[in-house]
Amino acid sequence: MTYFDHNATHPLSAAAREAWVDATSRLSANPSAPHRAGARAAAALDVARDRLAASLGCPAANLVWTSGATESANAVLRHLAANSTGTLWLSAVEHPCFIAAAQRDFPGRHRFLPVVPKLGTVDLDALSDALRHDRPAAVAVMAANNETGVIQPWQRARDLCREHGVPFVCDAAQWTGKLASTGLGDCDYVVGCAHKFGGPAGVGWIRCPSDFTPSIVGGPQEEGRRAGTENVAGIVSSAAALAERDAAIATNAIAERTAWRDRFIGNLMTALPGTTVIGLDAPRLWNTVAVLMPPAADCRRRWVVKLDRLGIAASTGSACSSGKEKPSHVLEAMRVGEGASDRLLRFSAGWETTAADWDTVLAALKSAAMELGAT
Amino acid sequence: MTYFDHNATHPLSAAAREAWVDATSRLSANPSAPHRAGARAAAALDVARDRLAASLGCPAANLVWTSGATESANAVLRHLAANSTGTLWLSAVEHPCFIAAAQRDFPGRHRFLPVVPKLGTVDLDALSDALRHDRPAAVAVMAANNETGVIQPWQRARDLCREHGVPFVCDAAQWTGKLASTGLGDCDYVVGCAHKFGGPAGVGWIRCPSDFTPSIVGGPQEEGRRAGTENVAGIVSSAAALAERDAAIATNAIAERTAWRDRFIGNLMTALPGTTVIGLDAPRLWNTVAVLMPPAADCRRRWVVKLDRLGIAASTGSACSSGKEKPSHVLEAMRVGEGASDRLLRFSAGWETTAADWDTVLAALKSAAMELGAT
Repeated sequence: MTYFDHNATHPLSAAAREAWVDATSRLSANPSAPHRAGARAAAALDVARDRLAASLGCPAANLVWTSGATESANAVLRHLAANSTGTLWLSAVEHPCFIAAAQRDFPGRHRFLPVVPKLGTVDLDALSDALRHDRPAAVAVMAANNETGVIQPWQRARDLCREHGVPFVCDAAQWTGKLASTGLGDCDYVVGCAHKFGGPAGVGWIRCPSDFTPSIVGGPQEEGRRAGTENVAGIVSSAAALAERDAAIATNAIAERTAWRDRFIGNLMTALPGTTVIGLDAPRLWNTVAVLMPPAADCRRRWVVKLDRLGIAASTGSACSSGKEKPSHVLEAMRVGEGASDRLLRFSAGWETTAADWDTVLAALKSAAMELGAT
Repeated sequence: MTYFDHNATHPLSAAAREAWVDATSRLSANPSAPHRAGARAAAALDVARDRLAASLGCPAANLVWTSGATESANAVLRHLAANSTGTLWLSAVEHPCFIAAAQRDFPGRHRFLPVVPKLGTVDLDALSDALRHDRPAAVAVMAANNETGVIQPWQRARDLCREHGVPFVCDAAQWTGKLASTGLGDCDYVVGCAHKFGGPAGVGWIRCPSDFTPSIVGGPQEEGRRAGTENVAGIVSSAAALAERDAAIATNAIAERTAWRDRFIGNLMTALPGTTVIGLDAPRLWNTVAVLMPPAADCRRRWVVKLDRLGIAASTGSACSSGKEKPSHVLEAMRVGEGASDRLLRFSAGWETTAADWDTVLAALKSAAMELGAT
């Protein structure tokens, strides 16, 4: 199988697996325990936290480990709702967990920031204008979109918010481990997780202030900001994966992989001219290509199923909303045509994906198009 | 090191490690993904859920995977608070996560059920009497206490609650994987986690109704009752550990291990007559011995540190409250003497602990007592 669904989850890296297995044997005590075995586990947590802090560029004390980006997003929005009476502004293309948590925690007091049609990037003029007239509880703009790979101008959104003294929240789940995370640590709140770049599932984090209101209470773990026995092996393994990715990011790996992506797009446009790449004119992640296939196919499932039979694991959009046959809120916000979701395919490469894998996808798409009468 | 702190966390079992490593290579896709790799991961989750359901004796549809018992407890109490205006009754010896969540979610509307002094079991007469006069939102009584190993009469508490139509919540974190979980599935709400019996940290569950209010929202995972990408490898690994433990529980392993515990207690009382075993007259877990050491030692840390130097990893109580030098609420509720927490040591064995390990602890305790002038 050629796996092109890394935005849903990235298979565990060899380094992460090794770190996990090692940690489960060497660091098997509870970090809160009063003996040396516990202290060793606690020290390993510190090292992992320092690793993440170095990547994001913020003090380790501002980082809280969680069970994943969804828990982190829920915790941040609960914290903001509990500590402010204002309105939450969030981009219209945020991940479903941000939208669902906003609906729950900011009922009647959240609004969506528009994105530039077709482009898919948050409308900074609209944000800037709104900030001149109103003062929200916080602004949330993701770093990169999970469905389209469109990179958001989060640095500029962050700076605009800072000028107005408004807390800025950034969902970096699809960014960290794919691109250099420098500057993310300057956001007030950041959420992310490890399984999007080859760490294990079940590990996430929050960059947050020290007076963060815990969503999960109980023991004094994480300086009182998230109770529950820490997943030491998972956290250590995540840090190993992050170190591996940050080292690769520092080489020319990104440029090379961006070229593979663009060659695939070029070849695809030539082979199937009816295909539309979503957000083609926006900066996009090197690993993600979201396309609208030609309209001949009557149902998006058929493309995915056909590709699956041809040995390609791709997606129809967010794994968190696939299965639900409703239109993608991301495409709607981007105004990418009525019924477009039905023709959406997302290819998301990983760190182990090769140039040849992209060629394999292209060949499979050609076959699928033939079989579906979509050429 | 001789590890006697399994109630804090149990090292990963060999079967659990093998299952995790296998799952991270064979089941590396997102269970929500629309391709066959995703379907395989989803099917593995179903098998694991069926395994837990068989252990607890409830429909698999009533089980939700979480990141741990603390998250589960928080979610259950949030759900109950959101769906009722009544009072929460909980035993005075519940885990800190239940107490903290009760204080947060039932402010001014929770009360503690007393335990029988010295014995440490919840006072069923008091519960029965209270239920005749009042109708709480729910009653929470743990299955077995983490600090003392005292087994609670949860089956009778559950039946009393059922007679009065009151939801019953049981914290089975220290029970499941140590004793047969039959009957737990008949409780309305049960929480537990895997790392207490040799599964990985970061995996917990809730037995709950199908209309459970999610604490973490976002994607449609877990039938809308807990959003976030499932920790497939962790869950599969947990199920492997549970199967292993349930198989052992079905043999005479428990009787044998209970005899080891009791022989240790007998030898300890002979060697250090000033020692008091907490809850000695109550039914207790086969793995746990909580003792008050003779008063010569002025600080509980010293016993733990001394033992640590002698190669024994033990605890001073709950890992979730150690580090905080405050009296144990469990000992206070049991009325086990002023200042008793300072002399508390908890030895908690695991599935790999041998009879010889108990002898090693005894010898170390004798040495420590000599060195501390506590004989």
